[in-house]
Amino acid sequence: MAGRKERIEMGDGAGGELMRRMLSRTVLPNIRETAFGDLGDGLHPDLLDDSASVGDDLAFTIDGHTIWPLEFPGGDIGGLSIFGTVNDLAVVGAKPRAIALSMVLEEGLDLQLLERISRSIGSAAKKADVTVVTGDTKVVEKGGVKGMVIATAGIGWRHELLSPCLERSWDMRLVSGKVGRRPRWLRDDSVMPGDHIILSGHIGDHGISVLSFREGYGFETEVRSDVAPMNRLIEEAMRAGGIVASKDLTRGGLAGGLNEWASKSRCDLLIDETLLPVREPVRSACDMLGLDPYEIGNEGKVIISVVDGFEDEVLRAVRSLEEGKEAVIIGQAVKGSGKVVLRTEVGGKRFMDPPYGDPVPRIC
Amino acid sequence: MAGRKERIEMGDGAGGELMRRMLSRTVLPNIRETAFGDLGDGLHPDLLDDSASVGDDLAFTIDGHTIWPLEFPGGDIGGLSIFGTVNDLAVVGAKPRAIALSMVLEEGLDLQLLERISRSIGSAAKKADVTVVTGDTKVVEKGGVKGMVIATAGIGWRHELLSPCLERSWDMRLVSGKVGRRPRWLRDDSVMPGDHIILSGHIGDHGISVLSFREGYGFETEVRSDVAPMNRLIEEAMRAGGIVASKDLTRGGLAGGLNEWASKSRCDLLIDETLLPVREPVRSACDMLGLDPYEIGNEGKVIISVVDGFEDEVLRAVRSLEEGKEAVIIGQAVKGSGKVVLRTEVGGKRFMDPPYGDPVPRIC
Repeated sequence: MAGRKERIEMGDGAGGELMRRMLSRTVLPNIRETAFGDLGDGLHPDLLDDSASVGDDLAFTIDGHTIWPLEFPGGDIGGLSIFGTVNDLAVVGAKPRAIALSMVLEEGLDLQLLERISRSIGSAAKKADVTVVTGDTKVVEKGGVKGMVIATAGIGWRHELLSPCLERSWDMRLVSGKVGRRPRWLRDDSVMPGDHIILSGHIGDHGISVLSFREGYGFETEVRSDVAPMNRLIEEAMRAGGIVASKDLTRGGLAGGLNEWASKSRCDLLIDETLLPVREPVRSACDMLGLDPYEIGNEGKVIISVVDGFEDEVLRAVRSLEEGKEAVIIGQAVKGSGKVVLRTEVGGKRFMDPPYGDPVPRIC
Repeated sequence: MAGRKERIEMGDGAGGELMRRMLSRTVLPNIRETAFGDLGDGLHPDLLDDSASVGDDLAFTIDGHTIWPLEFPGGDIGGLSIFGTVNDLAVVGAKPRAIALSMVLEEGLDLQLLERISRSIGSAAKKADVTVVTGDTKVVEKGGVKGMVIATAGIGWRHELLSPCLERSWDMRLVSGKVGRRPRWLRDDSVMPGDHIILSGHIGDHGISVLSFREGYGFETEVRSDVAPMNRLIEEAMRAGGIVASKDLTRGGLAGGLNEWASKSRCDLLIDETLLPVREPVRSACDMLGLDPYEIGNEGKVIISVVDGFEDEVLRAVRSLEEGKEAVIIGQAVKGSGKVVLRTEVGGKRFMDPPYGDPVPRIC
């Protein structure tokens, strides 16, 4: 008879089912009273979206970064921390504005490495059009952290393109006879049957690249991290109109993102496995290591839910950008109970389950 | 001949002179272009105040917390992280509104400890009247962090009492013939000759309590951490009117806070040492350990700069609260070059230098 778990396990921070359980048992109920029933039209904390809204027009988010090694093929912890926070704001429909940066450094850290990472933070902020306005630095004795831990918080204002975009979406739904909640942001629970799901590019690159580099598997010569800001891409998608939700696929990967949508939106997502873009070396690495590419973390990929009738226009807009040029429509939402269903290559169907624990730790 | 430093030292995160140098050489110039000349009337990032302003009315701040042990006499890392961020917002004249919480947990962490700390976060948020609206959790392997690292970011709106308070202050300065910048927030550079300096209570309790508990010196039976929210106290001070700056005395202690004011405001602060409240056990511990009580960190003490003529009213307001009942006026700003000058017990004078390194690491 298994007793109650007594200690934190690696999987408790993996963005999957284990983490959801740990947070909902040990942390969340103690931190604040949860709302019962109506969560309003904002980004209520209980929604556990990528950002929360404060007041009508402000989005607020935070992310801790523990990636190891600190530098990897295609990026480093500095750029990652900026883009990760920018993306969490962008995917809810906010225009990222300012970043607050906390660094906890390990005694003995190479100052030149810190300088390179600082430069990477600076150029990432410039690229994503945000400013690091405030920060905090602590140093802990050797072994107190591994190299450094960065936490980045971000704020952004409701994007000017968001309202027109949502209005067009909901007008279209009225035409098609669908009704439902009318949130003011791009929320995980806004997907409805009939919506098309767009994936912005190849999945698994970031996780496999970092893992391979760290463990010396050799795949990193062919696969680099995809770490990139997604705000321009979401902006172009909003400009095309008709999008109701978007989500960046970090911890938990595609399987994590899609399952969050399905369970929060209470519909099924029918995904065509033959359409899922996975690079050959990522597939080989996953085969060799017994990993599921759909559960591997990314740092520059999003899924977008588009109301029926707008999908071609949004796909065109996304593909017009370098970071979205390999975007594809991978499936559609249908009535259901909150599952992700894969139509397999041989014509069968199977569930794409939410990740349970952590396939690849410390990649974000 | 000493070469250029190559590695991070403990003192680089101590809030003193070493940290200022490391940040200004290695980090800040790489993260963003610094403003030259006029820094405006907001909380510009280059001011390195406790919070930065974004737009006209929003204050934004972040703090990383690495205190060890995680629980200590009078508090724990959870409450500390909430109050620390609340205080950074309150001291610039903002009304703390929402908190974002990042936790990096060590594999194997006791879940009951995490539950206690979560409860402490919840009750601290309630006490300080803020909501934890968003968060992020990561788990790292044993040794990746020591127990946990928490980063808390906070946002707050410009307090409704701030404008009337600043107007009264500047009116009084006009009367007394003083002119100067007219910032819209409580800023470190707003102190002017003639201002009175109020200290809200005994100093050194937090640092000595944690240090003593950690090392087993035994002083913790008499001294407990002072960790507390300061927003109500600042609010009451603003209501009394005439305050132009306030600052919480964390890393670097009283010496750190006063020296930041003096150098940023370009005036001298003349402090009467006989008026500085230090509890007997804190003084004994400092004597025994060779520490300077003025450099020891606090988590529930502020200094307030009050325009001449308002000092009694503000002191009365501050003393009306439990957390300020031992407040005293400790000195006054005078014309000078940015030094803190102590009038000693025997009638002499000496500089109170800014802290250089870290007298007591990992207490915040």
